[in-house]
Amino acid sequence: MEKKTVDIAIIGTGSAGLYALSAVRKATDNFVLINGGQQGTTCARVGCMPSKVLIQIAEDYHHRHVFANNGIQGAEQLRINIPAVMRQVRKLRDGFVNRVISGPITHLHDKIIDGYAEFVEPTVLKVNNQHIQAKKIIIATGSTPFIPKAWAHFKDYILTTDNLFEQEDLPAKMAVLGLGVIGLEIGQALHRLGIEIVGMDLLQSIAGIKDPTINDIAIDLFQQEFPLWLGEAAELEQLGDKLLVRCGTQSIIVDKVLASLGRVPNIAGLGIEKLGVKLDARGIPEFNPNTMQVDDLPIFIAGDVNGERPVLHEAGDEGRIAGFNAGQEVVTAFKRKTKLSITFTDPNIISVGKTWLVLENYSDIIVGKMDFQMQGRALIMSKNKGMIHIYGEKNTGKLLGAEMIVPHGEHLAHLLAWSIQQNLTVFDLLKMPFYHPVIEEGLQNALYDLRNQVTQQPDSKLVELTALD
Amino acid sequence: MEKKTVDIAIIGTGSAGLYALSAVRKATDNFVLINGGQQGTTCARVGCMPSKVLIQIAEDYHHRHVFANNGIQGAEQLRINIPAVMRQVRKLRDGFVNRVISGPITHLHDKIIDGYAEFVEPTVLKVNNQHIQAKKIIIATGSTPFIPKAWAHFKDYILTTDNLFEQEDLPAKMAVLGLGVIGLEIGQALHRLGIEIVGMDLLQSIAGIKDPTINDIAIDLFQQEFPLWLGEAAELEQLGDKLLVRCGTQSIIVDKVLASLGRVPNIAGLGIEKLGVKLDARGIPEFNPNTMQVDDLPIFIAGDVNGERPVLHEAGDEGRIAGFNAGQEVVTAFKRKTKLSITFTDPNIISVGKTWLVLENYSDIIVGKMDFQMQGRALIMSKNKGMIHIYGEKNTGKLLGAEMIVPHGEHLAHLLAWSIQQNLTVFDLLKMPFYHPVIEEGLQNALYDLRNQVTQQPDSKLVELTALD
Repeated sequence: MEKKTVDIAIIGTGSAGLYALSAVRKATDNFVLINGGQQGTTCARVGCMPSKVLIQIAEDYHHRHVFANNGIQGAEQLRINIPAVMRQVRKLRDGFVNRVISGPITHLHDKIIDGYAEFVEPTVLKVNNQHIQAKKIIIATGSTPFIPKAWAHFKDYILTTDNLFEQEDLPAKMAVLGLGVIGLEIGQALHRLGIEIVGMDLLQSIAGIKDPTINDIAIDLFQQEFPLWLGEAAELEQLGDKLLVRCGTQSIIVDKVLASLGRVPNIAGLGIEKLGVKLDARGIPEFNPNTMQVDDLPIFIAGDVNGERPVLHEAGDEGRIAGFNAGQEVVTAFKRKTKLSITFTDPNIISVGKTWLVLENYSDIIVGKMDFQMQGRALIMSKNKGMIHIYGEKNTGKLLGAEMIVPHGEHLAHLLAWSIQQNLTVFDLLKMPFYHPVIEEGLQNALYDLRNQVTQQPDSKLVELTALD
Repeated sequence: MEKKTVDIAIIGTGSAGLYALSAVRKATDNFVLINGGQQGTTCARVGCMPSKVLIQIAEDYHHRHVFANNGIQGAEQLRINIPAVMRQVRKLRDGFVNRVISGPITHLHDKIIDGYAEFVEPTVLKVNNQHIQAKKIIIATGSTPFIPKAWAHFKDYILTTDNLFEQEDLPAKMAVLGLGVIGLEIGQALHRLGIEIVGMDLLQSIAGIKDPTINDIAIDLFQQEFPLWLGEAAELEQLGDKLLVRCGTQSIIVDKVLASLGRVPNIAGLGIEKLGVKLDARGIPEFNPNTMQVDDLPIFIAGDVNGERPVLHEAGDEGRIAGFNAGQEVVTAFKRKTKLSITFTDPNIISVGKTWLVLENYSDIIVGKMDFQMQGRALIMSKNKGMIHIYGEKNTGKLLGAEMIVPHGEHLAHLLAWSIQQNLTVFDLLKMPFYHPVIEEGLQNALYDLRNQVTQQPDSKLVELTALD
């Protein structure tokens, strides 16, 4: 068998692998990229990008409901053409995929191996009919939507994000199974495109929300659009050319289901057990999220495959860390960014920093609140629904985290994440400019509410301004 | 003549006056509020709020042009009903005005004087048939749209923001005279509502843009929507029941014009000359923008009347500073916020921090750029037009300012203003989380471009992450 020796082998050319590559290239020219299956990242092919196109079109179409009230007539004449929507989704998606593929790896033909890698031993991979001996190996194989094995014989009725965007048309009636971030985003979009949707989840929470009040408000808001059946497992049964979906005492007959039950790591056939280290229930070895190193092996694991922070910018960081460390004799630990999660529903659902799940156990936590019912700009946009909860330290007003369901909340999420990462207090933030009329003023109101609950008020003449010496 | 003695008199119950009130009340109960003319702030009555309603409806209606491309059919059936639009503008506007009026001053009947104040001497005001002796006086009388005296006999053909929102209907053809922030915002909105618009300005720049490249891009973008005649003064001439508007060699016959030529301070009849201090060309006395004090008098001047920073959040700060200092024996100087200006056109035009007008004179300034033509989220929103320029110190990468024309740029404006106010560098910002796919990633690209031009690169292992010790 042919044998090749390299400094570094990267398994997977998705986002994490490509970011790893950019760091690896600064250390060595002697590397290979191994990729089995389709080129193009999860993000561009089947994730962030096509889903956002679908969401955007659905939101634009849904917005017709405010037209009559605002003097725009004829909204009742608007019709959605699902095949045309899906073509537009794929057209933009193809552009994003091409950008990813044609970018960093175009000139690396001789370093790219098309095939699935399998560990023979911790520093030897078998790919096709070749052995690759690598001083360091980066595992960045990504993840795949989970479908329960028991549902194998329903496979013609089950869509996932892997094939949803390939559909020429969409059926009239669907159940969305699993209301995490992806299920809720796509479920709302499909509903708004005119497909009859029921959303179901085993949990009583949606979109991973941890704050019970925000969760209740979110459930209430989404249930005004389409039914959510929560707290029971969904069961499938074939009925002619339809599916009967049971969820507790309720049931519905649908054309297809979207399975959005989470994602599983792509490790089948990888021979990860050859690393000789303990694997968790998902089959993933223990690793250090600050170095991305697996145990004390010359192996690094980055991106969705490790399940740690399955969002693009974190996959980027993990790729950078893994790539950098793979190129060094001694690994460096890096501080990870303030956690940030955005569900691109309308309104957005946001989680920043520490969650209520962690904070509710402490006695000295205060919560700044703002209801968006009367928020000026939200009223102007006909989107005055939502609630902010910001968590802070009672003694100092230091910002710890936030959860919210707010129109255009994605932008507030950045302001808060940047502020929390800098260890700012509510008093620091109230000294910042808030323009008018903007959604950011809703954040300002929540901050005033938080400020009022802080026990140690600073000795400042005006809360909003700093006195000059 | 009746005489009343108070600690503090506030002239004007607009935004600056009301913010001053909130600070004054912490110092004394012995105050009066004097207001001539209509109650309600410029912002709520004739400024920020009604204009944003008009802009929002116009933008929603304009967005129909991307519908067909995205699989939404029937956009050609949509019609705008201007009287219905104007009713909705007033309905929301009335809600905002009521909130302002019914808020802080409802319970202060005996302290509110309905009338126009006139200085008799620096600490004595005449209002109606009463003399008010005040230890301290706060001038917060606001401003009014400027109309050249020579145009007095065209007054039936001239609209300003003072009466625009009162119109039951709008004419078919208008000229917008003056393309500052207000003229450009309203001009674009009117155009998008189907009114034939020509915009004119004496200057070769629009919306107060200082960066020549951003200005060129902005002019090009807006000229794709409606004609801009720049660099010549507009002249009016009556033609039957129409107006002939000449601008250099070009001319147009219109039904009405919108005069958006700037605003002048409301000081007619105020007797400001009685203060005995030097007045500028606008009739405004010298004042300290950090204390709001006029000369060394017990007089403070806050909000639009002083022309310093005519935007709501700054009027708020000026009111707070004036109110606080009026209640103290010794005045305190406060640091003003990082400058921030948002033009709510589509795309938004943003100016933050120091402008190019100041910076172009220094040799060690670098400019980080990002064209939005291929920005992912902007493409998804069908709004991929725009450009960011971020200014930084060449040696250190310290952020100094930015100008941009960018979709939803209002949010980037806040991120940048907050960062500049904290004296952050481009390296600090690149360590912050940028989610995907968001408009904030366009800012990130501009920051990478800026970073590449900094001479003193920090000794950091990864630009995007901080190594742990």
